[in-house]
Amino acid sequence: MNAPEALDERCMMLALAEARRAASMGEVPIGAVVMAPDGSIIGRGHNLTETLHDVTAHAEMQAITAATATLGSKYLDGCTLYVTVEPCVMCAGGIGWSHLARIVAGAPDPKGGYSTFTSRSPFHPRAIYTSGVLADECRALMQDFFRRRRKK
Amino acid sequence: MNAPEALDERCMMLALAEARRAASMGEVPIGAVVMAPDGSIIGRGHNLTETLHDVTAHAEMQAITAATATLGSKYLDGCTLYVTVEPCVMCAGGIGWSHLARIVAGAPDPKGGYSTFTSRSPFHPRAIYTSGVLADECRALMQDFFRRRRKK
Repeated sequence: MNAPEALDERCMMLALAEARRAASMGEVPIGAVVMAPDGSIIGRGHNLTETLHDVTAHAEMQAITAATATLGSKYLDGCTLYVTVEPCVMCAGGIGWSHLARIVAGAPDPKGGYSTFTSRSPFHPRAIYTSGVLADECRALMQDFFRRRRKK
Repeated sequence: MNAPEALDERCMMLALAEARRAASMGEVPIGAVVMAPDGSIIGRGHNLTETLHDVTAHAEMQAITAATATLGSKYLDGCTLYVTVEPCVMCAGGIGWSHLARIVAGAPDPKGGYSTFTSRSPFHPRAIYTSGVLADECRALMQDFFRRRRKK
């Protein structure tokens, strides 16, 4: 594995840790982190829609808001977002507004992911989208959560 | 004018009042309100992206979050959102997640509106979208704001 791939996996593991925090709270287990160009993590977030009674409280929105608070700037130029599941259309729009340079997703989401709804990229025109990093781990966390919920 | 049209205009005037509050703070003048099925206003919001350094702080997102806080529920079934400008793709996604039954927009936004980016409705499957209510007033507020900003 080359260095960029190893970095992507390390950051996705941090996003997975956020997803597990969501699961432990009974939330759909999706997590996200934002990495600055110097490699530091400047924002973290996990799904909080149930806890906050707020459908806008997705992991990516929390991580973007946290990162902009860290920087004191509303733009995240040069930064990378790692998220365990393909963003929905709301989060993809937020990612676009934030000017994130790179988006790295874990598992694709053919049902609810942004790409099912869009005919044109909602990301910044120069942004790069990568999918499938630690996809099996990200997907397993979701499948396990929904399997447990159905059994209740 | 029939009663439903008069109600839409009255609610859009409340959204316009929110938009003017945004303008007075140097924010792009977009405002939104959420009306419950009984006709009461349960959420208000205006654009706060500059003030909060947060690209996710659009008028619709603020109004949705306020309305869900009022109801103590993350869903806004049966409610109507009034917004002075066609929602962007992020807000359209949030509107979809919230299950808003009706979306009434003022001015269309051919450049940044959700419909420029989507191939499939991001709203709830049964939601109804109406555009053009007090469109001239909503558009004039935006044009005036950007004209002043260019002169600075």
